[in-house]
Amino acid sequence: MMVGMEALEFSKGHGTGNDFVIIPDPEGTRPLSAELVAALCDRRFGIGGDGVLRVVRTAAAGEPGLAGTAEWFMDYRNADGSVAEMCGNGARVYARYLVETGLVATGEITIATRSGPVVAVVTDAAVSVSLDRPRVAGESTATVAGRALPGLAVDAGNPHLVCPVPPELELARLDLTDPPAVDPADFPDGVNVELTAPPPGEPAGGGRLRMRVHERGVGETQSCGSGACAVAVATLHLAGRTSGVVTVDPPGGRLVVAVTGDGCVLTGPAVLVAHGTVVTAALPLRPPPA
Amino acid sequence: MMVGMEALEFSKGHGTGNDFVIIPDPEGTRPLSAELVAALCDRRFGIGGDGVLRVVRTAAAGEPGLAGTAEWFMDYRNADGSVAEMCGNGARVYARYLVETGLVATGEITIATRSGPVVAVVTDAAVSVSLDRPRVAGESTATVAGRALPGLAVDAGNPHLVCPVPPELELARLDLTDPPAVDPADFPDGVNVELTAPPPGEPAGGGRLRMRVHERGVGETQSCGSGACAVAVATLHLAGRTSGVVTVDPPGGRLVVAVTGDGCVLTGPAVLVAHGTVVTAALPLRPPPA
Repeated sequence: MMVGMEALEFSKGHGTGNDFVIIPDPEGTRPLSAELVAALCDRRFGIGGDGVLRVVRTAAAGEPGLAGTAEWFMDYRNADGSVAEMCGNGARVYARYLVETGLVATGEITIATRSGPVVAVVTDAAVSVSLDRPRVAGESTATVAGRALPGLAVDAGNPHLVCPVPPELELARLDLTDPPAVDPADFPDGVNVELTAPPPGEPAGGGRLRMRVHERGVGETQSCGSGACAVAVATLHLAGRTSGVVTVDPPGGRLVVAVTGDGCVLTGPAVLVAHGTVVTAALPLRPPPA
Repeated sequence: MMVGMEALEFSKGHGTGNDFVIIPDPEGTRPLSAELVAALCDRRFGIGGDGVLRVVRTAAAGEPGLAGTAEWFMDYRNADGSVAEMCGNGARVYARYLVETGLVATGEITIATRSGPVVAVVTDAAVSVSLDRPRVAGESTATVAGRALPGLAVDAGNPHLVCPVPPELELARLDLTDPPAVDPADFPDGVNVELTAPPPGEPAGGGRLRMRVHERGVGETQSCGSGACAVAVATLHLAGRTSGVVTVDPPGGRLVVAVTGDGCVLTGPAVLVAHGTVVTAALPLRPPPA
């Protein structure tokens, strides 16, 4: 099948609905162009994903400053082809891939990323990754569907605004089609907005939250790893705590965030759903006609 | 890789941006459940597609009334898992698959479908399929962005309303986020609305059109095969003709429609972009938490 056409090995996986095209390139012989990444992530003309995870040995990655940090480097790219530093759910899927394909022999792995090494623990049911602890930056407000919601600004490497939704507004029914309005003085580069509420029938402050997230430049998404960590830190802060465990349910599944004084561990399902080859000659390496 | 887990062979392909998950099942040993189809078509938790094309020998398909019509049956399912009769772009991708995988030895194939046999012609550059000739049903009007646009209702097996967009409105800038408003007396089951305009710099009536389409129950899409055929028939009708060739450019590419007194041939690119295996145990056979 497809004899004579160039084929590129891939897998597809997701963590709570954040999905990724995984490209194995252990010896670093296949650097990714922005054009190829965008074509792979195109959901109709390519495979489809929120980003690409290139699996490359650190020694072969050609990235400065990584020598000796870990055997495997997560070369993460956004769906538009741009280079990105980190992605919490991406790191969880990357770790699953290393274990499931036998590239590593143990379930406890250090992965090199552009924002430093990440420790991952892989079990059958879940993958945990250690991330930098988000930091509460102050108070601000998001306006959603005409209603001003006070919240906490949180810096998780990227900017977040976590707003508890009062019981008289139903979290599931809020219209997040448009970006929530925020104070541009607080967020000059835009912000990811997380709206939270306890699960139905549970009181506030019980350590479990539902989350909906509007990612800047993207729209509402199924999940956001850094958003879940920001929600956990903000929720603990509002309860006067600096550490603890918070269960966060984005639309795409369930994440558990353990916050300590100096770190944050993000845990949840991460699965590979397909393995195969991409026919690169069939990809739209120029954008389809507008 | 994935030892011990059930894997399902698949390919992914598209025709002008209508994309499909293709499941080979020549001997009919793997009937599809609605749940599995919906999971395969889920763009984040599965593979992603507008529908599933199951490739099964007619003799093994278990469909009534198909015996002797053609060797291969296109078992087409919508992304929600429901059974559908026909899909023009789906039939073009199905024919590409038969030829490219060697299941048929020639580029001219008859394919059995639930709405009768379709003749497909496959070349390197394009795939043509013969479809029923759409029929002009009368005049009606769609209101788009506050502006009433007169058009022609066309029955192509499913209902269409084709509205030429006047030059003072820019086709590319019209907001199709919401469904165009139509007269429910004309379209009790809803309607697919095609908006058309000549390419920039070309006069009306030159045999080439750009098309944007809002599919009922779906929203704006990259392409629609029956919509392109409806556009061709309506355009010829407005020019006082019953036959001719019309080039239709939806956002996803270029389709050529040849209309005769009793038929319609839809031609355009159809490509396979990936081949592999799906890990069925990883699919969300229940919907993810809302």
